[in-house]
Amino acid sequence: MNEKCGVVAIASNKNVVEDIYVALLALQHRGQEAAGISVYDDGIKSIKGVGLVNEALKKDELDLLKGNSGIGHVYYSVTISIPENAQPSVFHTGIGDIAIAHNGIITNSEDLKQELMRKGHNFIQGSEEESFAYLLSDSMKGKSFEKAVKYAMKKMKGSYSFALMFNNKVYGLRDAFGIKPLCLGKIKDGYIIASESVAIDALGGEFIRDVEPGELIEITPDGYKSYMLMKEKYKAHCFFEYVYFARSDSVIDGIEVYKVRQKLGEILASEQPADGDIVVPIPDSGRAHAYGYSKASKIPMAEGLMKNRYIARTFIMPSQKIREKFVRLKLNPVKSVVEGKKVVIVDDSIVRGTTMRKIVDLLRYYGAKKVHVRIASPPIIAPCYFGIDMTERSQLIASGRNIEEIRKEINADSLGYISIKGLTEAIGIKKEDLCLGCVTGKYPIKVDNEELRFQERIEKWR
Amino acid sequence: MNEKCGVVAIASNKNVVEDIYVALLALQHRGQEAAGISVYDDGIKSIKGVGLVNEALKKDELDLLKGNSGIGHVYYSVTISIPENAQPSVFHTGIGDIAIAHNGIITNSEDLKQELMRKGHNFIQGSEEESFAYLLSDSMKGKSFEKAVKYAMKKMKGSYSFALMFNNKVYGLRDAFGIKPLCLGKIKDGYIIASESVAIDALGGEFIRDVEPGELIEITPDGYKSYMLMKEKYKAHCFFEYVYFARSDSVIDGIEVYKVRQKLGEILASEQPADGDIVVPIPDSGRAHAYGYSKASKIPMAEGLMKNRYIARTFIMPSQKIREKFVRLKLNPVKSVVEGKKVVIVDDSIVRGTTMRKIVDLLRYYGAKKVHVRIASPPIIAPCYFGIDMTERSQLIASGRNIEEIRKEINADSLGYISIKGLTEAIGIKKEDLCLGCVTGKYPIKVDNEELRFQERIEKWR
Amino acid sequence: MNEKCGVVAIASNKNVVEDIYVALLALQHRGQEAAGISVYDDGIKSIKGVGLVNEALKKDELDLLKGNSGIGHVYYSVTISIPENAQPSVFHTGIGDIAIAHNGIITNSEDLKQELMRKGHNFIQGSEEESFAYLLSDSMKGKSFEKAVKYAMKKMKGSYSFALMFNNKVYGLRDAFGIKPLCLGKIKDGYIIASESVAIDALGGEFIRDVEPGELIEITPDGYKSYMLMKEKYKAHCFFEYVYFARSDSVIDGIEVYKVRQKLGEILASEQPADGDIVVPIPDSGRAHAYGYSKASKIPMAEGLMKNRYIARTFIMPSQKIREKFVRLKLNPVKSVVEGKKVVIVDDSIVRGTTMRKIVDLLRYYGAKKVHVRIASPPIIAPCYFGIDMTERSQLIASGRNIEEIRKEINADSLGYISIKGLTEAIGIKKEDLCLGCVTGKYPIKVDNEELRFQERIEKWR
Amino acid sequence: MNEKCGVVAIASNKNVVEDIYVALLALQHRGQEAAGISVYDDGIKSIKGVGLVNEALKKDELDLLKGNSGIGHVYYSVTISIPENAQPSVFHTGIGDIAIAHNGIITNSEDLKQELMRKGHNFIQGSEEESFAYLLSDSMKGKSFEKAVKYAMKKMKGSYSFALMFNNKVYGLRDAFGIKPLCLGKIKDGYIIASESVAIDALGGEFIRDVEPGELIEITPDGYKSYMLMKEKYKAHCFFEYVYFARSDSVIDGIEVYKVRQKLGEILASEQPADGDIVVPIPDSGRAHAYGYSKASKIPMAEGLMKNRYIARTFIMPSQKIREKFVRLKLNPVKSVVEGKKVVIVDDSIVRGTTMRKIVDLLRYYGAKKVHVRIASPPIIAPCYFGIDMTERSQLIASGRNIEEIRKEINADSLGYISIKGLTEAIGIKKEDLCLGCVTGKYPIKVDNEELRFQERIEKWR
Repeated sequence: MNEKCGVVAIASNKNVVEDIYVALLALQHRGQEAAGISVYDDGIKSIKGVGLVNEALKKDELDLLKGNSGIGHVYYSVTISIPENAQPSVFHTGIGDIAIAHNGIITNSEDLKQELMRKGHNFIQGSEEESFAYLLSDSMKGKSFEKAVKYAMKKMKGSYSFALMFNNKVYGLRDAFGIKPLCLGKIKDGYIIASESVAIDALGGEFIRDVEPGELIEITPDGYKSYMLMKEKYKAHCFFEYVYFARSDSVIDGIEVYKVRQKLGEILASEQPADGDIVVPIPDSGRAHAYGYSKASKIPMAEGLMKNRYIARTFIMPSQKIREKFVRLKLNPVKSVVEGKKVVIVDDSIVRGTTMRKIVDLLRYYGAKKVHVRIASPPIIAPCYFGIDMTERSQLIASGRNIEEIRKEINADSLGYISIKGLTEAIGIKKEDLCLGCVTGKYPIKVDNEELRFQERIEKWR
Repeated sequence: MNEKCGVVAIASNKNVVEDIYVALLALQHRGQEAAGISVYDDGIKSIKGVGLVNEALKKDELDLLKGNSGIGHVYYSVTISIPENAQPSVFHTGIGDIAIAHNGIITNSEDLKQELMRKGHNFIQGSEEESFAYLLSDSMKGKSFEKAVKYAMKKMKGSYSFALMFNNKVYGLRDAFGIKPLCLGKIKDGYIIASESVAIDALGGEFIRDVEPGELIEITPDGYKSYMLMKEKYKAHCFFEYVYFARSDSVIDGIEVYKVRQKLGEILASEQPADGDIVVPIPDSGRAHAYGYSKASKIPMAEGLMKNRYIARTFIMPSQKIREKFVRLKLNPVKSVVEGKKVVIVDDSIVRGTTMRKIVDLLRYYGAKKVHVRIASPPIIAPCYFGIDMTERSQLIASGRNIEEIRKEINADSLGYISIKGLTEAIGIKKEDLCLGCVTGKYPIKVDNEELRFQERIEKWR
Repeated sequence: MNEKCGVVAIASNKNVVEDIYVALLALQHRGQEAAGISVYDDGIKSIKGVGLVNEALKKDELDLLKGNSGIGHVYYSVTISIPENAQPSVFHTGIGDIAIAHNGIITNSEDLKQELMRKGHNFIQGSEEESFAYLLSDSMKGKSFEKAVKYAMKKMKGSYSFALMFNNKVYGLRDAFGIKPLCLGKIKDGYIIASESVAIDALGGEFIRDVEPGELIEITPDGYKSYMLMKEKYKAHCFFEYVYFARSDSVIDGIEVYKVRQKLGEILASEQPADGDIVVPIPDSGRAHAYGYSKASKIPMAEGLMKNRYIARTFIMPSQKIREKFVRLKLNPVKSVVEGKKVVIVDDSIVRGTTMRKIVDLLRYYGAKKVHVRIASPPIIAPCYFGIDMTERSQLIASGRNIEEIRKEINADSLGYISIKGLTEAIGIKKEDLCLGCVTGKYPIKVDNEELRFQERIEKWR
Repeated sequence: MNEKCGVVAIASNKNVVEDIYVALLALQHRGQEAAGISVYDDGIKSIKGVGLVNEALKKDELDLLKGNSGIGHVYYSVTISIPENAQPSVFHTGIGDIAIAHNGIITNSEDLKQELMRKGHNFIQGSEEESFAYLLSDSMKGKSFEKAVKYAMKKMKGSYSFALMFNNKVYGLRDAFGIKPLCLGKIKDGYIIASESVAIDALGGEFIRDVEPGELIEITPDGYKSYMLMKEKYKAHCFFEYVYFARSDSVIDGIEVYKVRQKLGEILASEQPADGDIVVPIPDSGRAHAYGYSKASKIPMAEGLMKNRYIARTFIMPSQKIREKFVRLKLNPVKSVVEGKKVVIVDDSIVRGTTMRKIVDLLRYYGAKKVHVRIASPPIIAPCYFGIDMTERSQLIASGRNIEEIRKEINADSLGYISIKGLTEAIGIKKEDLCLGCVTGKYPIKVDNEELRFQERIEKWR
């Protein structure tokens, strides 16, 4: 189970450890809970740890790891971070060693596990990757790795972009809907597969193309081989990668993320105009969208909210009182910018709405005459089952509320969301080929007992 | 010795520990090496530690600290961080307890120390604060605290904004040139003095006014008392606070920092126009200046460089090779934004120039047709002796090079700095009242053997 | 692979976590590298960690663990300690959860692993316990746990005393040769199985009896059930448990360890008399033997060597020079005791001989007139393959040297070892029922390619 | 304030850091809370830390420290260990640098501090060493170091053995009563002064003689110079050093500690005979005394109590319940030794009596027919003000109870303490020259408001 994660695979003529390390640093925004690297050195050897890449992977341990092929992983989780969750997961089987780094969620993982246990498999972690590995090892007898993967793909439901190792061979695999991103590149001494193109950039490499939905690619120091193992009628690319999750400088499925974000702002401006003096982005998530909004609306942009960059992810509040001051500490309005102004706030999305309410109140306190809120994604009304962590339905501000009710809740003078039509237009992928589950409630893959499954994923063996 | 630092003092009707903690979080950008809080509780009691505020000050220790008056400090240093450097420094004297939190540098500290040692004082830390404390305790016999402070001010040369405690009384003190910032505010149950107004904001308080150069202010839960102890003909406000160091949302000496930065960009645009398609800020330091440049030049602004926010201050490179990729990992161009464009890069300053060179090269690699560099401060040609850490003269790219030589060094198509006239105009303070030492080589206070003294400050007792 | 280890299993009417914790503290001498506890709480839950029991198992984690049945483990290893090595090892199988805590070595573990992998099992740790668990889960289909254990016992070669859990049921299992100790006791609210009787003592419980070689015992809060699953013609109790490894206050296979050690000293005195003024034990390992030697020889005992109890297991020498002074720092002669005396040194064994040489030299330096060395075990000439860590053959001082050569090597005036006959007489178990492999080179179980296997055990997957 | 501590000073022709490190390891039993080393290297430089020597002083820091003269310290404290308490304390004065390592307690420290503060001195730590340093620096003007020390000795009351540095010169100083031990030795490249002779042994050096009460000794690489600065009519050597605190292999004031302990046992046997079958020592504190008791009484000695060496000083009990089992975990009777026997327990002292009660009960539970307790020191009826930590008077079992009452309290069949006469005879120093304060209530130095002062020492500035 890997809510959001980053994966990378490299095959090279030289030791790949440093290149994987650099790639993981570039993918750090996809997961900050844990990190790991596996390489082939007469069997698959790994180092893993908890925290950011440079906390999890220590120099002295990195120095011991050597191999010309390998994979890496950065881990994101809603649950508390424990060393056991770090990937790649490694399995020693009768046919060879398998290592798996996963971005996505196998929604029928529990069923697969029960089935595999009935067949005689024993689970140590109980993870989705363990199920995948056992599906592979079961079917690999006498067959090629590709055929084994094809068999496993038929069994697994859900989203997955995998970096895989089978002994010293390395692969990238993307689910047939192409839900999570995965791309291919050329680097100095070999080839790379990674969640986002920024990992290729960080190594000074060249982007070749995206891994196709349903495609398995084997990379070697000298080239790559493609196996189209599965095909669905439609794609189901996660639209949220474009809106928020991927880095702005990435290119996903041929589309430049920054451009999408700017265009989202432009369309938002035309769909939801506002009588404003200035456009103020929520830093840093809303900035690209705000540029577009400003450009299209001709309302000048200004940095009216300053971010305290030291209030970090790992920040633990020493008291309830300080917790209440948290938004204030994280974002402070610039009085000279907002005072007396009609402010148009632009952000990528609203999930629970509590932070947005505090921002609106702060801006009013600093003298903003009006506060208009414009959001570059449609209202989130349902949870995501395929990868990006979102809260339970009941916690979503847009679940069971209409726009006017949400506006009141966040105390804005006006509120506008982009339409689904506007969203798909900005991305440039037709609606049928996107996963819009969280804004439509309709999922590309059938999810049985969805709320139940959502819970199951949270309660696990320790 | 406190290159850059943040100080805070609070007097309240209730326990001040949490409020000081919040204020220090808001001042975190002024120092990330160490932090400390001292309060009065039947004598002055302290907790201090190494690292960011939430690393240095642990919840269980904070819970033990109680007092209705106190001071706090965040510490920045060029040298390695050791617990002994954490402030406030506390001294138990015959007349009472003294605690000192310091931002600035006492340039004649070594002379004072020698003089005080000859007089019979013994030094444990050998710090500037120790000298100040002994000057105070020597002169306090039979005199008021104010008179003792006045005496000490006459002896001390250099820059200082102090948060002070004398037993349960708390004070703010600013040197007669007003080199470093210090301001006064009202909070819910009392009064606050802090390095920047953002600390007052973070507590939901109201900014009252700046502490005047040469002024000592005592705060109580119910009000404040001012003592004008010293006056210089001119001020010497550090211009770099406006250009780079203070937070954009702060107001210093009556002037809004964000506004200054935007104006710097505007004037820069008129002084150093560029034939560009887009204005690209170096995130985050150059953003406000870039807004101004874009506005005045009508060249549209675009986020052509993306910052990897996880490559942090504490980042330790596991190998030389990864170190070389560092700029690439920290800043990645957005191809869709820069490709085929004439790019105008805007930043606040250039110190050594090595990073700027790498950015220019990266932009070219990603297809920028031209790269013009515009800098919102004049060339830095001399070190700073009064507070902000700058490198030795020999490492400054602008020391001994003309503009054309610097341009070649950084491989830009054109290079323009703002003029000193433009700088002072943007700040709105007349030249005579600013410290422009690092861009003119002329310092408001005579510094004997300047390079020597600079060295001395680095080699200290452990 | 568990060179030396301690295991415990408890079934109780109340939460067993604290009782297991206390038992592990009592067994701490059997392993200081790692520790762990598993309990049944709607599935098997565990906590494990690296270091001594009170380092590895933190209070806040212990508080979260609850269950009326559970097992525990303390781990000893020649190799570097890593979290993955901590036991109990837990496996989730189609028939239920299995937890294993192991003391001993399965010598055909590599063969079993290969066989199980060929059968379709995948290994994550590659441990001996993983092999055992998969043997169990394979054979448990439709069969009782006892039958599955019997099947596994037939497959496994080597030494093992296991504490086992199958879902909420807890068991103790001892190999058919009874190589490693295991005993049964009654505690306040239930029953306990542990490596040594001292664990029962620590809980204020009553020793019932040893687990028989080849016996599986299931304990419940109200009693215990025995299954005799396998029988060998002879036993192969490890004699070294009596000589050195077990705690002196333990009772193993009906024999009090302290009594054996004293008797060893007595027999040693008669077999290897010495012309001495005083008997000096090597603290603390040789003390009980020295009492016996003194008693039988009528030579008075004296504490002529003082141990520095702070130079601990975890001690890391900051320099080569200090390392050379190590023995001197750990053991210092008492001049008033040894000066001018003919000293008889008594210890339990000599492995490499380097420490003994330094002790003899030290005693001479402090004025001992003669130094006679008497050893309460026969010369160690071969490695141990079944549990207690001993060095490679080439490093054993007694391998390839006769007594006179060893004497010269350690610079003693005379040297005497107990005979094998004396050893067995002191223990009171007939020679056929002891494992004397390391002093005879003849092992109770055939070990193929013994040196090779020894190496294999050291190089493992990480 | 240094309840129990160890000090060392070395002057050498080569770098002394490693030798001081080794000496501190040998003195580790005198303090486990903190450790530090100061050397002269163009000014006094130090490293200090919390914990055992090898925890407090890290290799990488040790490598940076270089100097041919230096001092070291191991710290023991009743209060919680904090880095600020670590010694040596270093003071930079007008005449030079002073470093102080202290074993003992200055009983008039608070008065001295007040007096020095009135004189204009400022205290940072408020420590006894700070007072001593300021006394020195005040009187050193124009005078020799020896004269300054003499002046300070006149002002200071209490016990002290100091290792001192004045710039690169190193000294040992012992109070005029000789309360705490201090001795002089020759090592390979220079001279050493240390709390106990075992530090000299550890370096392979030669013991020369004790530092005399009232004597200051300066050591150089080539020799030593003595200054007899003060003389008292009587000595006041702490008798407890012989009974318990010093290591058995030390020689203090010309007397071998092990010999004293054995003799204490012999005299105890004659004064307090017992009808016993075996003499059982409390390990390890009572062992030497037990040897003497056994020898004189002809009752054979046996190790009837086994110590769990892993239940260490730093052990933190995870629950109250485990705390109650603590004695049981630390000491376990050997059934085969004590069952059916009349046991004579020998220990060095009884302070609170709670542990002794539990031991007696345990022995009875394991079948001891009788338990006779014999103690090798007189009843402790009063606190110690000069160095060794003892509990408040109210917690001492012998304060306000007669022997029969104590016997009942600890549940023994009989109880016997050695007499004061027996004690002094065993030590071989006449009564007038010993400090017997804790067993007589009469102190060699007048202590004003003794209980009050005792409290004051515990509550200090943080």
